[in-house]
Amino acid sequence: MPHFADRLATACRTKGNSLCVGLDPRWDLLPLDLRQRHDDGKLNGVAHACEEFCLRVLDLVAPLVPVVKPQSAFFEACGPAGMSALQRILAKARQLQLITILDGKRNDIAATATAYAEAALSAVKVNDKLLSVWGADSLTVNPYLGRDAVEPFITCARRSQGGLFVLVRTSNPGAGLFQDLRCESSGSTKPLYQLVGEAVAVWSDENLAECGFGDVGAVVGATHPDELAQLRQMLPRVVFLVPGYGAQGGSAADTAAAFRADGLGAIVNSSRGIIASFAPQETDWPDAVVNATKAAITDLASATPMGQLAKFV
Amino acid sequence: MPHFADRLATACRTKGNSLCVGLDPRWDLLPLDLRQRHDDGKLNGVAHACEEFCLRVLDLVAPLVPVVKPQSAFFEACGPAGMSALQRILAKARQLQLITILDGKRNDIAATATAYAEAALSAVKVNDKLLSVWGADSLTVNPYLGRDAVEPFITCARRSQGGLFVLVRTSNPGAGLFQDLRCESSGSTKPLYQLVGEAVAVWSDENLAECGFGDVGAVVGATHPDELAQLRQMLPRVVFLVPGYGAQGGSAADTAAAFRADGLGAIVNSSRGIIASFAPQETDWPDAVVNATKAAITDLASATPMGQLAKFV
Repeated sequence: MPHFADRLATACRTKGNSLCVGLDPRWDLLPLDLRQRHDDGKLNGVAHACEEFCLRVLDLVAPLVPVVKPQSAFFEACGPAGMSALQRILAKARQLQLITILDGKRNDIAATATAYAEAALSAVKVNDKLLSVWGADSLTVNPYLGRDAVEPFITCARRSQGGLFVLVRTSNPGAGLFQDLRCESSGSTKPLYQLVGEAVAVWSDENLAECGFGDVGAVVGATHPDELAQLRQMLPRVVFLVPGYGAQGGSAADTAAAFRADGLGAIVNSSRGIIASFAPQETDWPDAVVNATKAAITDLASATPMGQLAKFV
Repeated sequence: MPHFADRLATACRTKGNSLCVGLDPRWDLLPLDLRQRHDDGKLNGVAHACEEFCLRVLDLVAPLVPVVKPQSAFFEACGPAGMSALQRILAKARQLQLITILDGKRNDIAATATAYAEAALSAVKVNDKLLSVWGADSLTVNPYLGRDAVEPFITCARRSQGGLFVLVRTSNPGAGLFQDLRCESSGSTKPLYQLVGEAVAVWSDENLAECGFGDVGAVVGATHPDELAQLRQMLPRVVFLVPGYGAQGGSAADTAAAFRADGLGAIVNSSRGIIASFAPQETDWPDAVVNATKAAITDLASATPMGQLAKFV
């Protein structure tokens, strides 16, 4: 299998864009008809509604976008049945040739980090058998625990030609509490998020793909366009996963600096802007999902170098 | 239900110690007999073996210790069946009056953080019903995303009289990469972990229990005893969850500074030192688990203020 960044680049060129559809299924935002059909007063019903909804969304968006990002929290919130749904959604995304980012923001040390990483990305070894668990192409990870906590994730990702996206500058309003602290480094001071970004660049450069990007990406929010532009300058070979576009307030123009001139290098996520682009009682919600996806692609293509990708289609 | 810190204090006084048994079930370390009985070449067999093992460990340690800490990673690594096992293990721990810490190191923003927190600690609202998912008393969380990312966890914890343990100074050798960076703060510089600790103290002080501790604790590794002592001075009303004792190299004396003089304020975790205290082929492994638990209690009681708790039994 090719390097993760090359697979990502191929998928983006094939679809002519680099939009990622975030699968964050929330009961209150699901189509009403679907809720009524599955409601059994228990978590199993919620899990089944989330699953049917996400599988349908995959069918709708697979012809349009290269990447999807299931958010682990919403599946965990449905209990074990939600985790079965997550497993089937990831499997279907693979069948549809979508690149998957499991958004788990996982972090731990040593054998525990390995357990998370093997489960998400490669396989768990049981006696002499290798068993796939969640089967994602990539995983989001939190860097606070340091070098030896991130390395087991890198090792597993490389074993399966997968990728990671390390949180660098997140899109929430309070992100700066720690991420913006100015830290001493080689005689000067820099914000913490830049030092995390520099660590990501070292990891990423260890394994560059033909397209020029590495397999350890960075999460950088669209809601901080200046920081985004600075980080792109500092980390020219790191793929950025950009949340915060759309419902969280980031505009297409705010994401422009994340891209390399040829349109590669950034994956822009939209979750609510697509999967909650309709009122729950609307029965033609699949049209709304398709239209919102197409509108986001047009919006991003017109305001960013992502427009360059359309010529490959 | 009483405040989380009071429930914890009562449990520690009832058992006369504050040892936490970490439930990190790893296939390769499980008793051989149990592995052979459940091995079906699939993840379901692994999940069933982990479940039988952990349920047995709960029966063995419930008369001895106040707290258990299931590690989410090892259950996730068994797929959906592993998550069902986790659910039943947490339920049984509750029945046995054990305080539970779900070790998930979760982190995200806004509605996603709420989804993690409701699932772990309180309940998910579906129409007008509140449905419990994992049902833990407390959860470990990672602070990198900042204030508004931690607050949904705090809100949910308070709704259910639960608690949180925020990663401050972790026990791994590479923890210092970011946690030890000196950061500017009010005209001087401090290591990042101390600034995270100060934020935890503010959250903790918002809701103090009768015992004098708050409901937002801190994870501080035993492998850095000087930092541990400093943090205890700085954060006198924050409960510390102390990993790193035993198999990771921290001694009982290394944990001493984590305690308040009356023996409260610190929960010391041991995972492998207890649940892998035997060779897999040993059939009398339950005796090994009980003996290792008793030995850890004796070790900690002799070298730390935890010994004060024995007088309540």
